[in-house]
Amino acid sequence: MEYKFNRRISGVKPSPIREIIKMVIANPTIIPLSTGNPSMESIPVEQIHEISDEIFKTRGGQALNYGATEGYIPLIETTKKRLKDAYGIGRDFDDVIITTGGQQGLYLPPSVLCNEGDTVIVESPTFVSGIIAMKENGCHVVGVEMDDEGIRIDGLLDAIKNNDNVKMLYLIPTFQNPKGTTMSLARRKEVYDICVKNNIIILEDNPYAELRFDGEEVPPIKSFDEEGIVIYNGSYSKVLSAGMRLGFTCAPKPIMQKLIIGKQGADCHSNLFFQMVTDEFFKKYGWDNHVKLIREVCEHKAKFMLSCLDKYMDKRVTWTKPQGGLFLWCTLPDGLDGYDFSKFACEKGVAVVPGCCFMVDDDAICSAFRLNYSTPSDENIEKGVKILAAAAAEYIDSHTK
Amino acid sequence: MEYKFNRRISGVKPSPIREIIKMVIANPTIIPLSTGNPSMESIPVEQIHEISDEIFKTRGGQALNYGATEGYIPLIETTKKRLKDAYGIGRDFDDVIITTGGQQGLYLPPSVLCNEGDTVIVESPTFVSGIIAMKENGCHVVGVEMDDEGIRIDGLLDAIKNNDNVKMLYLIPTFQNPKGTTMSLARRKEVYDICVKNNIIILEDNPYAELRFDGEEVPPIKSFDEEGIVIYNGSYSKVLSAGMRLGFTCAPKPIMQKLIIGKQGADCHSNLFFQMVTDEFFKKYGWDNHVKLIREVCEHKAKFMLSCLDKYMDKRVTWTKPQGGLFLWCTLPDGLDGYDFSKFACEKGVAVVPGCCFMVDDDAICSAFRLNYSTPSDENIEKGVKILAAAAAEYIDSHTK
Repeated sequence: MEYKFNRRISGVKPSPIREIIKMVIANPTIIPLSTGNPSMESIPVEQIHEISDEIFKTRGGQALNYGATEGYIPLIETTKKRLKDAYGIGRDFDDVIITTGGQQGLYLPPSVLCNEGDTVIVESPTFVSGIIAMKENGCHVVGVEMDDEGIRIDGLLDAIKNNDNVKMLYLIPTFQNPKGTTMSLARRKEVYDICVKNNIIILEDNPYAELRFDGEEVPPIKSFDEEGIVIYNGSYSKVLSAGMRLGFTCAPKPIMQKLIIGKQGADCHSNLFFQMVTDEFFKKYGWDNHVKLIREVCEHKAKFMLSCLDKYMDKRVTWTKPQGGLFLWCTLPDGLDGYDFSKFACEKGVAVVPGCCFMVDDDAICSAFRLNYSTPSDENIEKGVKILAAAAAEYIDSHTK
Repeated sequence: MEYKFNRRISGVKPSPIREIIKMVIANPTIIPLSTGNPSMESIPVEQIHEISDEIFKTRGGQALNYGATEGYIPLIETTKKRLKDAYGIGRDFDDVIITTGGQQGLYLPPSVLCNEGDTVIVESPTFVSGIIAMKENGCHVVGVEMDDEGIRIDGLLDAIKNNDNVKMLYLIPTFQNPKGTTMSLARRKEVYDICVKNNIIILEDNPYAELRFDGEEVPPIKSFDEEGIVIYNGSYSKVLSAGMRLGFTCAPKPIMQKLIIGKQGADCHSNLFFQMVTDEFFKKYGWDNHVKLIREVCEHKAKFMLSCLDKYMDKRVTWTKPQGGLFLWCTLPDGLDGYDFSKFACEKGVAVVPGCCFMVDDDAICSAFRLNYSTPSDENIEKGVKILAAAAAEYIDSHTK
């Protein structure tokens, strides 16, 4: 049979990262600075085990049977309280549901808001699976460059003016993936006002919210959303465990009603057992102690990688200095191709993610690449950066005059 | 802000079941024969607990971190082997992935195969969340009536002739939801040949496959799929636990590549911890003992409900006699409205699902309703059927001359 797929999925091209992954699989000695996993040290396996034990003993049958599409009510309440207490998020017109990882919170909003061909504006570069979620829903995705304060206002206004049916703006304002940078408060307010004026829904993705180890908290856009135009998306993947696949979405109730119908068709509900575990975890251990621990792990890793970059990296390469999150972003001198360099670095023994993977345009050339510091051991961070530094020096020498 | 949703989600209307659910919530003395949950007795809580313990101790960090979109490889292999050994499913051109419950296996196929407006043909009545998954993907859903052997051939041919771009046929051939009936082998073959001839993909949903307690196994359509036109969808919800949200899909590789891209955008991957648990469960306890147990539970419940119906139910009501699965389907005399009756029965103290909930057309009137026998206790089955029988007699008397 000759298979015919729809236009939406045909618009999603295989990522260039596949070539890098193939090289890594073929050669296990390659040091991966390429993943986006939380640090193993930050997963509280023993406490999760203990709580699971108790749930199996007291409510095992309930936890292993069907649950509500919206989520486990006590966890919804726990999540609401955290959002309110720590981030000032949640007004009377808002509601919260539990999603199957932060990823589902990126898929559902375009699936209920956007007709095929409607425009979604995103930061460029941005989270690759965010782009995929929009394209799978048939959205016309338009990237706008960032400056030091976040997405550029001139670029945003141009994108709104030059594209039809702009329905949504997708942003990762805090510890952006892949850049690791944070949008200023002034820029957040400016962007919010523009979206209010233009009837554009903001999808604010904040999976790294709890991972700040330096600098001042910047209020999420959702915290000043008086107009009800912001869908706020969070994740338990970086706080507790990615394998349990739990995230949450806070949105105005009329949008939430549609998201729940969307979720019913998509996967009925999220894993109930681990919703109970997550709720019990924060009831038993509290947020503060645990968040302190994961921030310390994150801080140590980030600062160690930054110190290695300072020590070893060729000075023609620049990089961002994140105050939280999992990533930093390195830029080669102008005109060099980060994808070509990433393959070269892989041959030398270290894997990074080429910047072009985070671009909307499949053919984009980008002189940057992303580094992850949360997954590798200290030893591998130092080894990896050393190899990367030597590779960068050699590559730049041979590709510039 | 005035919210504007897309055409696809706007096409999904709230189910009439909501009215029934409201009545049940408001009055906890109502006996629910309305759910679709597996029996609590069939969930092996202690064994799952024991295996979880061992995974926390030996591989907790891995199980709680990110996994592959396709699924946990040992579970994929275990699933492939079961499909081959028990059902003759899986050719060289096929592959298997793990999904977030059977529901995701209904959502992903239309999301990669169907453009907005393309036609999907379904059995009428059929699984309501199957209809929702198709409509959310913008499909034009067309229902075809069934006779004693399954979906009617004349209806199917008419639907193919009278609708544009028929891309998919969605079937639950074994222990159909809601009817509880099973499509004959001859009908399966006839339907398959028609789909081959017309380039139509069959989505064969088989969540109740392991729950046969009577009669001869009828080979799944996928088992004779030489042409690679069948996507086979299974679930661990009715075999092991619904709360863990795990299912599986077997499809030809070119389709599978697209389903994996679809899943990446939808939820990245399914809960890794319980993928490991499921794999270990079947490695440790084997399929045969466990399936024997859940079939016995199922058989007992089904036969007990059937005996109660024989004993108490008004003879003007007819019902199906399932050989497996979770449901049976009761039909009131011609011209009566199953939705109106369901509200009446709820007022009398028993909840059933009105037949119109399983219809493609939101305004359909259906003289039938669905009963579930797996969830209620024996005591509640007997009580519930008694109340239902009295309600039916009273309702029929007052609505017929």
